[in-house]
Amino acid sequence: MNTIGQLINGEVIVEGTRQQDVYNPSTGEVSKQVDLASKSTVESAIAAAQAAFPAWRNTPAIKRARIMFKFKTLLEEHADKICAMIGEEHGKISHDAAGELQRGIENVEYACGAPELLKGEHSKNVGPNIDSWSEFQPLGVVAGITPFNFPAMVPLWMFPMALVCGNCFILKPSERDPSSTLFIAQLLKEAGLPDGVMSVINGDKEAVDTLLHDDHIKAVSFVGSTPIAEYIYTTANANGKRCQALGGAKNHAIVMPDADMDNAVNQLVGAAFGSSGERCMALSVAVAVGDAAGDALISKMQEAMKNLNVGAYSDATNDFGPVITKAHQEKVIGYINSAEQQGSKIVVDGRQTKVAGYENGFFVGATLIDNVSSDMVSYKEEIFGPVLQVVRVGTMQEAMDLIDAHEYGNGTCIFTRDGEAARYFSDNIQVGMVGINVPLPVPVAYHSFGGWKRSLFGDLHAYGPDAVRFYTKRKTVTQRWPSAGVREGVEFSMPTMK
Amino acid sequence: MNTIGQLINGEVIVEGTRQQDVYNPSTGEVSKQVDLASKSTVESAIAAAQAAFPAWRNTPAIKRARIMFKFKTLLEEHADKICAMIGEEHGKISHDAAGELQRGIENVEYACGAPELLKGEHSKNVGPNIDSWSEFQPLGVVAGITPFNFPAMVPLWMFPMALVCGNCFILKPSERDPSSTLFIAQLLKEAGLPDGVMSVINGDKEAVDTLLHDDHIKAVSFVGSTPIAEYIYTTANANGKRCQALGGAKNHAIVMPDADMDNAVNQLVGAAFGSSGERCMALSVAVAVGDAAGDALISKMQEAMKNLNVGAYSDATNDFGPVITKAHQEKVIGYINSAEQQGSKIVVDGRQTKVAGYENGFFVGATLIDNVSSDMVSYKEEIFGPVLQVVRVGTMQEAMDLIDAHEYGNGTCIFTRDGEAARYFSDNIQVGMVGINVPLPVPVAYHSFGGWKRSLFGDLHAYGPDAVRFYTKRKTVTQRWPSAGVREGVEFSMPTMK
Amino acid sequence: MNTIGQLINGEVIVEGTRQQDVYNPSTGEVSKQVDLASKSTVESAIAAAQAAFPAWRNTPAIKRARIMFKFKTLLEEHADKICAMIGEEHGKISHDAAGELQRGIENVEYACGAPELLKGEHSKNVGPNIDSWSEFQPLGVVAGITPFNFPAMVPLWMFPMALVCGNCFILKPSERDPSSTLFIAQLLKEAGLPDGVMSVINGDKEAVDTLLHDDHIKAVSFVGSTPIAEYIYTTANANGKRCQALGGAKNHAIVMPDADMDNAVNQLVGAAFGSSGERCMALSVAVAVGDAAGDALISKMQEAMKNLNVGAYSDATNDFGPVITKAHQEKVIGYINSAEQQGSKIVVDGRQTKVAGYENGFFVGATLIDNVSSDMVSYKEEIFGPVLQVVRVGTMQEAMDLIDAHEYGNGTCIFTRDGEAARYFSDNIQVGMVGINVPLPVPVAYHSFGGWKRSLFGDLHAYGPDAVRFYTKRKTVTQRWPSAGVREGVEFSMPTMK
Amino acid sequence: MNTIGQLINGEVIVEGTRQQDVYNPSTGEVSKQVDLASKSTVESAIAAAQAAFPAWRNTPAIKRARIMFKFKTLLEEHADKICAMIGEEHGKISHDAAGELQRGIENVEYACGAPELLKGEHSKNVGPNIDSWSEFQPLGVVAGITPFNFPAMVPLWMFPMALVCGNCFILKPSERDPSSTLFIAQLLKEAGLPDGVMSVINGDKEAVDTLLHDDHIKAVSFVGSTPIAEYIYTTANANGKRCQALGGAKNHAIVMPDADMDNAVNQLVGAAFGSSGERCMALSVAVAVGDAAGDALISKMQEAMKNLNVGAYSDATNDFGPVITKAHQEKVIGYINSAEQQGSKIVVDGRQTKVAGYENGFFVGATLIDNVSSDMVSYKEEIFGPVLQVVRVGTMQEAMDLIDAHEYGNGTCIFTRDGEAARYFSDNIQVGMVGINVPLPVPVAYHSFGGWKRSLFGDLHAYGPDAVRFYTKRKTVTQRWPSAGVREGVEFSMPTMK
Repeated sequence: MNTIGQLINGEVIVEGTRQQDVYNPSTGEVSKQVDLASKSTVESAIAAAQAAFPAWRNTPAIKRARIMFKFKTLLEEHADKICAMIGEEHGKISHDAAGELQRGIENVEYACGAPELLKGEHSKNVGPNIDSWSEFQPLGVVAGITPFNFPAMVPLWMFPMALVCGNCFILKPSERDPSSTLFIAQLLKEAGLPDGVMSVINGDKEAVDTLLHDDHIKAVSFVGSTPIAEYIYTTANANGKRCQALGGAKNHAIVMPDADMDNAVNQLVGAAFGSSGERCMALSVAVAVGDAAGDALISKMQEAMKNLNVGAYSDATNDFGPVITKAHQEKVIGYINSAEQQGSKIVVDGRQTKVAGYENGFFVGATLIDNVSSDMVSYKEEIFGPVLQVVRVGTMQEAMDLIDAHEYGNGTCIFTRDGEAARYFSDNIQVGMVGINVPLPVPVAYHSFGGWKRSLFGDLHAYGPDAVRFYTKRKTVTQRWPSAGVREGVEFSMPTMK
Repeated sequence: MNTIGQLINGEVIVEGTRQQDVYNPSTGEVSKQVDLASKSTVESAIAAAQAAFPAWRNTPAIKRARIMFKFKTLLEEHADKICAMIGEEHGKISHDAAGELQRGIENVEYACGAPELLKGEHSKNVGPNIDSWSEFQPLGVVAGITPFNFPAMVPLWMFPMALVCGNCFILKPSERDPSSTLFIAQLLKEAGLPDGVMSVINGDKEAVDTLLHDDHIKAVSFVGSTPIAEYIYTTANANGKRCQALGGAKNHAIVMPDADMDNAVNQLVGAAFGSSGERCMALSVAVAVGDAAGDALISKMQEAMKNLNVGAYSDATNDFGPVITKAHQEKVIGYINSAEQQGSKIVVDGRQTKVAGYENGFFVGATLIDNVSSDMVSYKEEIFGPVLQVVRVGTMQEAMDLIDAHEYGNGTCIFTRDGEAARYFSDNIQVGMVGINVPLPVPVAYHSFGGWKRSLFGDLHAYGPDAVRFYTKRKTVTQRWPSAGVREGVEFSMPTMK
Repeated sequence: MNTIGQLINGEVIVEGTRQQDVYNPSTGEVSKQVDLASKSTVESAIAAAQAAFPAWRNTPAIKRARIMFKFKTLLEEHADKICAMIGEEHGKISHDAAGELQRGIENVEYACGAPELLKGEHSKNVGPNIDSWSEFQPLGVVAGITPFNFPAMVPLWMFPMALVCGNCFILKPSERDPSSTLFIAQLLKEAGLPDGVMSVINGDKEAVDTLLHDDHIKAVSFVGSTPIAEYIYTTANANGKRCQALGGAKNHAIVMPDADMDNAVNQLVGAAFGSSGERCMALSVAVAVGDAAGDALISKMQEAMKNLNVGAYSDATNDFGPVITKAHQEKVIGYINSAEQQGSKIVVDGRQTKVAGYENGFFVGATLIDNVSSDMVSYKEEIFGPVLQVVRVGTMQEAMDLIDAHEYGNGTCIFTRDGEAARYFSDNIQVGMVGINVPLPVPVAYHSFGGWKRSLFGDLHAYGPDAVRFYTKRKTVTQRWPSAGVREGVEFSMPTMK
Repeated sequence: MNTIGQLINGEVIVEGTRQQDVYNPSTGEVSKQVDLASKSTVESAIAAAQAAFPAWRNTPAIKRARIMFKFKTLLEEHADKICAMIGEEHGKISHDAAGELQRGIENVEYACGAPELLKGEHSKNVGPNIDSWSEFQPLGVVAGITPFNFPAMVPLWMFPMALVCGNCFILKPSERDPSSTLFIAQLLKEAGLPDGVMSVINGDKEAVDTLLHDDHIKAVSFVGSTPIAEYIYTTANANGKRCQALGGAKNHAIVMPDADMDNAVNQLVGAAFGSSGERCMALSVAVAVGDAAGDALISKMQEAMKNLNVGAYSDATNDFGPVITKAHQEKVIGYINSAEQQGSKIVVDGRQTKVAGYENGFFVGATLIDNVSSDMVSYKEEIFGPVLQVVRVGTMQEAMDLIDAHEYGNGTCIFTRDGEAARYFSDNIQVGMVGINVPLPVPVAYHSFGGWKRSLFGDLHAYGPDAVRFYTKRKTVTQRWPSAGVREGVEFSMPTMK
């Protein structure tokens, strides 16, 4: 059986000490093994990065950017292969994997602008004949730890920007679906990246803790669940590293009485069930303002959900695929059960969904639950499955209070035609990413991604402009030249010469 | 005896439970008492800030800025009074206090540009008919904890920017010299700041720990010593706050063989002994490259130091005053003793300095030490006194290696006429603030202040552009309007009307 | 009788060769004389500016900005006096004059941010060891030519930014109401501006043409009517100067069927009749979409206009005052006559308005005209009087086509609640300043002011960020230091020393 | 014989009415014909652009940028072919053509950052509940008119930025070497640019004047000689277009006594003679400060010039090739003659240079002239040939005065090791592009290119950040939503529901 290895100093190696199964969630079978790196393997990656840093740091930003130009081309050329790898190990359908990859490539495109993004500020005459300017220098070796749900996109949020800023990068992707990530990283060599500048470590807590405690690692970017994010953030900080750690979410959409309901439903179906709801920006709660809106929403959702296909990743006509593991499948079904037990109404029930020919796949069908309230477990926690819960409230203010009371503040959305409602909502809601008739308000690559409250630990957001500041340290130079230099010293030629 | 109180919700109160002596370091006598806030007093300040926040957050940035315009005028009008307060409790001479205040006012001036600084980024058509923009919203209630050595300037690094960004602010100044800080904060009311938006808490660890653990405090800015900075940073982060904590320093100047030596010596005298060396940007180590430079430096420094006057704050002809406490005086002298014992040469000795009429003042005279090496305690630790140590090396690279090996990386400087040497130095040295023939390269208020290595914990620097990002959280809005609105719906008039 | 002179090199002088009457439009009487500068007087101002330029250009930006901080304070202290001067010579009521002055002061506030605004861009390693950065250097001596309708505000759009960018400035204000402008400029000396850096020239075409042809004038900013703007622009360009020339306007508001009609009417009354309509941003055409909107608009406007008071500037209960001259009064009335003759309906007629006690004042009452069409003279030309014309159309697209067909494109507005309508309008309309439910969308001082089509000649707008670029020229420096300098040359000390 | 046609609406056509010879300057023979467009052909290109504009303008910036990503790849793939086309018609050697193309491609790379570059500024709460933001909208159809000396690079300075900003573009390249330009433009179609968005017009004054007078052309970018630049600028402005017109140059290098002379000479040889001196940034005057510097410069230049090879474009071992035409060859030789007649000393004489096998080629050999003075014709005018003139002065100030007295102010350079001299020079010299030990200080693509004085007409420079502002018009939107919208209207559900 194929074993997925480590990319260290330009070579893929298999350490061979410890390994873990990698599943095909559509079939429920083990398809590969992934090598789990030991502390010393991680340290060899760090050592390679340290060695590569001085030359990479001195490479002009435009040359670093040109590697990203080439990398983009390679990613596009190999898109089908990457999407197939994602599908096999994660379970998402090819159109969804292609969407993920495209969002990732957009970060590569943004990184191509490094010379513009790295400009410092130059002030002439901060005092008489004194100038001052800022430089944004790389940190050194930095690390990224990424989740299973976007094995291509989330790493691409991190390392392209880190690299063009002049850092070396060590990536620890999810051990559940590591193939596409490894393959993507290998393309960097073909794009011209010097060996050692980027390494990929597959592993578990041993690898993570090595990264968190090694003095040569200067910064850590993390995306995952909130408890782990908090651990990563606290540990990295205590070890003198800068850190940004993105955690969980519970994204609400407010459906106002004046919403274009057909449009809203159409958007919600994709936002709630796409990628089986395994997205930190999945729209998992709809808050209907007024019963008319609530009734229309339930009725139209029911209708729309009839056309949804769940099935194996390999069939592009499917809308979404399995969840990542058997354990997670059971957990999602457990949340639906608890909602039912706590008094909500299961309008569309995906618990018994079976896919012909894939009876052992980890499938959960699209599920719609009405009359959910904020004291239910299924409301409080992140389900990370294809489940849309509907809460009904009487006013927009109630809807907003509900959202603000939740511990997470990643994304949110309002459906309305009314300019005032949209402005009041986006101004006041305590959530970092806000959509107005946009259910998945993931910022484009030239803005930055980040939630509020317990959805993000750190002060700078992921990718976009904030990434430049996160992956560089500011140096301020103040300069005054002494007088009586060569200019003022003497006359240099005989008077008769003039 | 006068008791210095707390400024809470627009009123100065004295809690009266616990108090501490405030000294006049020039005379060595206790001159006042400072009230020490209990946990509940701190919480009342936080509650006032919470209450004031909604209205302050919604006040247009230009109106917040206008309070700073007025505040600047008031600070200038009351400059003499503020400087006298600083002098009495800190000991610095009036010209030095005036310099401190001026640097503080420059941050107020920068804060007046809030409407420009708070602009978000607006992107039209991130997709067809979809727009996206960023807003930089205030955090809520934030806190500052500041040191004794700049009772006016360091608080002014923090709260003007925090306030114009829309935050409420709670300041915990040093309990050693709190009068000027309190007075400055009181001027904000006259400038138009609503009550509760800014409070000042005098206190000790109880006050600090209350701030660090209260959930309503969203961010903490700190300036002090490295061990405390690290404690503040770790504790604040563990409690879900963002934090920037500035610590200690050991700032080196390289004196190159081609330096304008008269200019260098002139600069070094001020940079080493000004404010008795009690500055985190004090130049405390000179690294001479080559013996010719070293000999000239020692000789000219000796000569220049003959003209230095140390004495009471109240005499403007003095160059510098006492150190802050009796204990600190003894500590500084202890460092000189240890340097002598470890083999360096005390060229000018300030240990026995007495000031006539101020025999109990906490004075240490300007001290010059030659042949210092990197294994000496006096070299490794921050002395924070009027002591300049000279290290001799053979090459510029040795000088740079020495600097990079030190645990601190706050400020540094090179004296040279050579463009290449200056550029190589500023590019490669692992220090955050670099001077070229500028011995105290404190960035101007429209750049940002921050050291590297163990001189700063956090990823954003103090004041300037970084302060905007530190004191705000990014919100990204993505907007698409549904079609078939009022524009497209119907014809609104009879055909015959057209 | 009082003669208003010239401010040259810090002194007010009266040349005395030629003079012109200055009227009090409220009484219709001549109140003062204004001195008209000859070519040689203008040249003496230019010479003073040339002499002052080198020192001013080298003054650090923060010091130039501090003069603006002081200037703001002085303008606020003298606000009543300035407003009275404006009222007497222009005719606007004190609350309107105060509004004008406030908008002017906002530009002074923006200019206080000069150190931030003048930052260049610094790029490290554009090639190996090559750095490059941009500096924004002042142009030298620049000129402003300003109109009667905002004697305080429009000059303040120009010279504060020009000055803080390091230029010297020569202002040629309107000869109809020059007193407030002159007084304002005199305050600059008290604020600390060196003599010669700013001069004020009162005059006519001789003065203007001297400015346009003198080689020492490097740039000209102009605000006035379109034919003059075009002349200024073409002439200045032909003489090698950069120029921005703002001309006329015809600002339309679209009133959509879903508008908050009470709010719209309330806004329109001020926007149409405020300052007697003598504003380049006056809202002079309302385009009602659908008859329901049109009928409601006419009916509610009629009602609202009953409460309008027209009268002398000296009575603060008046809403607006006289127009600027007898000739202009006749011209405005002529436009109303022509509209009537061409078939529109005069709903409220201000032609016969008389103000008791001010029978010779140049008054025109607020006038509302319905059923205006695009072929009428009163529609095609800028009336610059208190006249609101209503055009009725059947669809929003018709309304937009009407606006886009007009030769001017200064400001425009839509009244609607619908997000989609607002976005479509603001995106597509060929007008530079767009309001959504804001009838006078004058950009705030930290944005820039400028119309499209024949409302502005030039590529950079007035004040705000564009002003920095207009009043500076870009210099790009590229720097590489030769190797083998002092750093690499030799060892500087004996081997035994190391 | 091959006829080079017009690229209109995606197709290459030959109008066939008028044609002009295209030479191979290396052989002196006519190699092709170029079609000269009539007014109606130009108008058809404009019509195609007008038709393509609405869809192109609404294409998201990221999609426009992606065409540039692809275009960059295509340019790199076809680099050899493009360089051969340049060589045959212009005469430059392949390494020089490759350098030109690379500088052009860098502008394409910068254009790939369009989404970042086009961001507007968003201000929340400019007043209570009022927001304001700026958008940078395309102008419509814009034109570029480019010179023979960089048939690939100068067009690439213009159209990539114009296109990504959303404009349609009509390019009028030089009729002397049009093949590479046309070929490059054809690649845009393969890159995905819609037909009509970009057209190429070959022609003469008829084509130029059509562009300058047609109302649909909104802006013109020009690079050429100063008299034509002035004509283009004045005419375009008089016709209501914005314009930037870059003209001639006379670039001086100051050689200071402390310069690294070997490095300086090495740099000067390339900067003076590369591309036969037919560059607007060619270094054509060296100003030696002091006789020692002057003598060393002459002596080392003589030596270095011995190794220079002049010859046909097709031999890559040549350093430079012929000049563009027979007439230009004679003109260059005429300048050398006049210098000799006016008393300077011809140290190295290229007038008689012959290239074996290419006896009819338009060659001029590298020429070095000493003792040139500022009253000589050869000094005052731009030679645009491989001629380096040396002026000797006694002080750096004299050197700077000389430079500032010249009518041109494009580029300049100083050779020194001294930080103070470099800073004084770059600060004060009246030239737009300044090199410090960099003889051709052409700004990189992410800065902007532009000279001062009569080297550039207009206020915005070419390419880089200024190009964004030149190719867009600012629109400022101010928005307030009326209250009592859907949010506040009513409760939407029965009380019992809550």
